[in-house]
Order: sequence, then structure tokens, then C-alpha cells
Amino acid sequence: MSLFSIAYLGPAGTYAEVAALTWGKILQQTAQAETVLVPCPSIAKALKACQTGKTDFVVVPVENSTEGSVTQTLDTLWQLDGLRIQQALTLPISHALISLAHELAAIETVYSHPQALAQCQLWLEKQLPDVKLIPVNSTAEALQRLAGNTTTAAIASQRSAQMYNLPILAHPINDNPDNCTRFWVLSLQPSPGGNHTSLAFSVPANVPGALVKPLQVLADRGINLSRIESRPTKRSLGDYLFFIDIEAGTDQPNVEMALQEIQQYTETLKTFGSYEILSVTERL
Amino acid sequence: MSLFSIAYLGPAGTYAEVAALTWGKILQQTAQAETVLVPCPSIAKALKACQTGKTDFVVVPVENSTEGSVTQTLDTLWQLDGLRIQQALTLPISHALISLAHELAAIETVYSHPQALAQCQLWLEKQLPDVKLIPVNSTAEALQRLAGNTTTAAIASQRSAQMYNLPILAHPINDNPDNCTRFWVLSLQPSPGGNHTSLAFSVPANVPGALVKPLQVLADRGINLSRIESRPTKRSLGDYLFFIDIEAGTDQPNVEMALQEIQQYTETLKTFGSYEILSVTERL
Repeated sequence: MSLFSIAYLGPAGTYAEVAALTWGKILQQTAQAETVLVPCPSIAKALKACQTGKTDFVVVPVENSTEGSVTQTLDTLWQLDGLRIQQALTLPISHALISLAHELAAIETVYSHPQALAQCQLWLEKQLPDVKLIPVNSTAEALQRLAGNTTTAAIASQRSAQMYNLPILAHPINDNPDNCTRFWVLSLQPSPGGNHTSLAFSVPANVPGALVKPLQVLADRGINLSRIESRPTKRSLGDYLFFIDIEAGTDQPNVEMALQEIQQYTETLKTFGSYEILSVTERL
Repeated sequence: MSLFSIAYLGPAGTYAEVAALTWGKILQQTAQAETVLVPCPSIAKALKACQTGKTDFVVVPVENSTEGSVTQTLDTLWQLDGLRIQQALTLPISHALISLAHELAAIETVYSHPQALAQCQLWLEKQLPDVKLIPVNSTAEALQRLAGNTTTAAIASQRSAQMYNLPILAHPINDNPDNCTRFWVLSLQPSPGGNHTSLAFSVPANVPGALVKPLQVLADRGINLSRIESRPTKRSLGDYLFFIDIEAGTDQPNVEMALQEIQQYTETLKTFGSYEILSVTERL
């Protein structure tokens, strides 16, 4: 029996851990493999662990339906070479208010990851308008901050409340009931192929219509764009990279030809592979 | 003499305050007006203060050369009606490490705004690889956390260190020496006009090439795009708004016609006005 290691943003109790466990379950079912989870202190360190061969896989959040792209994932992937997407996992994200307080009125401070605070902002403004919101590195770290205090609360998953044996005061508290996050599973292996392809490119600066050209190549060949995200190159204001998801695989002849043609209009073009998206409904 | 109020993300000592002071100076010179600054606890609250008529102007960060868009500004502007851009201000952003510690080796914890931490991440990895990084709501709030402690540090401006009478241990520490942030000055008045126009639109979901159409309209008329940013509509994954900056004013006939044509291909189209960009080099 094989043993695979999976890097993710820890500590135990994060949503990334749920995604990593889901991937472990899939490996168990499809490859009869055992898995070991490797928590990392940041998304960048998780990606580097896999890219340098320290782990077999890495699972990272890419995009949330309320808060948008996870920019640290995109920026790090642009810098690293060799990682390919094996699978996308879309997980429902349902937040709970976790606290030792007996009622909402007793809460003075709420800790959570900035994305989780943003995903609950309307609920917080209505139910806890006067509390202090404190961003921390992960939802699991927010729970560690409660430490016997009855005037603080954390926003994290129901699952993590159970893991840390802490009471749930309200659930769900996310503003959008369909709140979900897409994760990518990456490794140094070639992509398996599938109906979704992710790529990134930089275009020459200060050329009129520079971005339209590559998009037009895709549109002309009937290839649908499901997502576009711009990121600064970090050189100067107005100089961007673009991350694009298309709804087709690189094994389709029109996609292959489109990618060849796009090369002419881009400075650097990186393809992260073709893969399938699995929507996970079952809760671990 | 008129008196104008300017809302910004406070408390005193933030980079947004420098931008607001710059705008105040411009008003003083061009309209012989006095100004009063109104610090607000969040970007959303600053924008709402102006949109509801509580202040005459609001100054908000839009984009940083290293970290990209300030998504809270874009998301709030899409929801609010009536605010128009009066001026863009590009400010150099130079970060200092501020601490009561006598040497770097004594520092265990560094506080700052998440964008400032991100803008200094390479310096931090090299010089302070083992410290704990703690995100807080603003750079000024980071300074307030130091409170006599000789094992903590904050990342903020030189100016704020002087305001709070705190020593600077290292400067500059931002990874990109040309690090700068663009701010928008908005009010309920019509835009003054200028060579830059900002707009936002949503496109029909699941229509192939839906985004290419509006971009093609601009390219066909020779209008250059200086920026494109996608944001989730917060309805479901894969459903986006687009924020676009073009290098032309709405008073140009080709821009007027392009915007009319774009209406056909968009669900909702919002124009935030035409304005000039001022690059501020003088330090306040």
C-alpha cells in the first residue's frame, strides 16, 4: 500500500484541512493509498513543500464565492515552476460563531481569518455592531485565542468547534447561504486532463489592446472563459499578470491551437494543467 | 472661506490620512478652502459617510503596486450609488520597522495591516524569519500595540513613528522600492472630467465570450485599458463583476459611443466618472 503526504494551511481545524482530508479519501478510494497530512504555517510554505518534493501533494484555496481570489495562492504559483493541478474541489463553507460567552451581548472581540470576517460582515454589523474584529492567520488560530475568556468569540467551522471542544453560539452566520470555496490539489506529476484548464500570462506593458488579443483568440475558437483575475507584477502600477480558467481541456485541438496562438501575444505563458472539478456536498 | 470635510480610514497616522491631507492641501490651493479630516473605522464606513452626505469628500485606497486591488473599496463602491471620482492620487509608500527593541534579534512579534505585511514579506523572511506576524486593522493601530514592549515591532510610515514618538529600527523595508498606492477622492458632485475613466459592469452568466464583447468594443475604438479587475458578485462561484480603467475621458466621442455600445453586452454598467491622476512625490 502506498503512502502519500499532503501539505495544507494548518493548524488542524482549518477549512483547508477539510479539503486535504477529502483528497485523502479520494486517494484511498481510487488508489488504495494511505495519506498523511502535513500542516504548514502559510499557503506559500505549503506550495513550496510540494514543489521541492517534501510532500506528494498540496491542497490550497483558490477562490471563494463571496470574497474572490486567494491572491497568495496565485502569486506563489506564478513564481514556482513545476506544480500541476490534479483536481479542483469545491467545498461548502459554513461559518459558526464559537464562544464561551452565554449570550451575544457579552461579546466584545471576535477573532477570525480576514476572509471569514469578510464573509460574515453583514451578520456581524447587524448582530454585533460594536465588537472589535481582529484578523488572525487562520480560523483554527482564532479558536486558540479564546482560551477561557467569556468576552471573546471566534468565527470558524462547526467541525473545528467540536475538535477544540468549544460551544457554538450561532450557526450559520455567513451572509451568503451558498458560500463555498474552490481548492486546487497540485503535485509535480502531469495533470490528468479534464474539462477545465488554468493558465496565467503577462502581456507587454503599455500596448493598447494587449489583453484583448489573447481573450479574442479564445472567443474566436468558441472557448469559454469561466474566470479572469488580474494581479500586479509587483514591478510598477499598471503592470499586470492575468490568471484565466477556461472550460475546455488542452487535449482538444482548438484549445491546443489557441494556446499556441496566444504565445504570440503574451510575454510569459504558464499552463497549470487540465483537470475536473468535484463539488463536495458530504461534510466530513 | 468654505470648510470641507474629508472622510478616510483612520486613526491618525495611516497612509490614507496622508492622502486625505494631500487632498486638503489641493483644496486649499485651488479653492481657498479649509478642510477638516474625519477618521472612520473602515473603508466601507468612510465611503458611506460621504455617500449619505455626512462628509463632502472621501479618500480611499484603490490599488497598490505590490498587493493589487483593495477589494473592500471596489465591493462597497459597486453597492453604493452616487459617488463620483474627483481625482486620483498616487502616493509613494515607504514602510519602516518601528520598535522599542534595541536590535532586530530581540523582536518576537510584528504587527501591521495585512497589505503592509505582504509588501515587506521578503524583507521579513530574510531579516526576521522566526517572528510571529500579526495582522491588524491599520498601520496606525499596529503602533498602538507596541505599548512599552521591547519584543514587539510595527510596520508603518516614518511619519506615524514621529507622531507617536516611537523609534525607527529599519527603513525602508518594503520589498519593492517603487512601492506606491493609488487613492481615489470621491464626492456626490459630478466628476471634473479628465483622461482617465473608471467603470464597472456585470455580464450575463454562462454566456460564452460574455467578457470579450465589452473589451472588444473598447479595442475596436482604439481605447486603451489600463486595468481590469474581476470581483465575485457574491451570488455563486463563477459569477463576476468587472472593474475597468480606461485611458480616455467620457467627453471623447469614441468613448461616449463605446459606452453606449457596451450597454448592450452588460447586465449593469456603472460609470464612476472621468478624472486626472496626480503623482505625489512631495512627502507631507
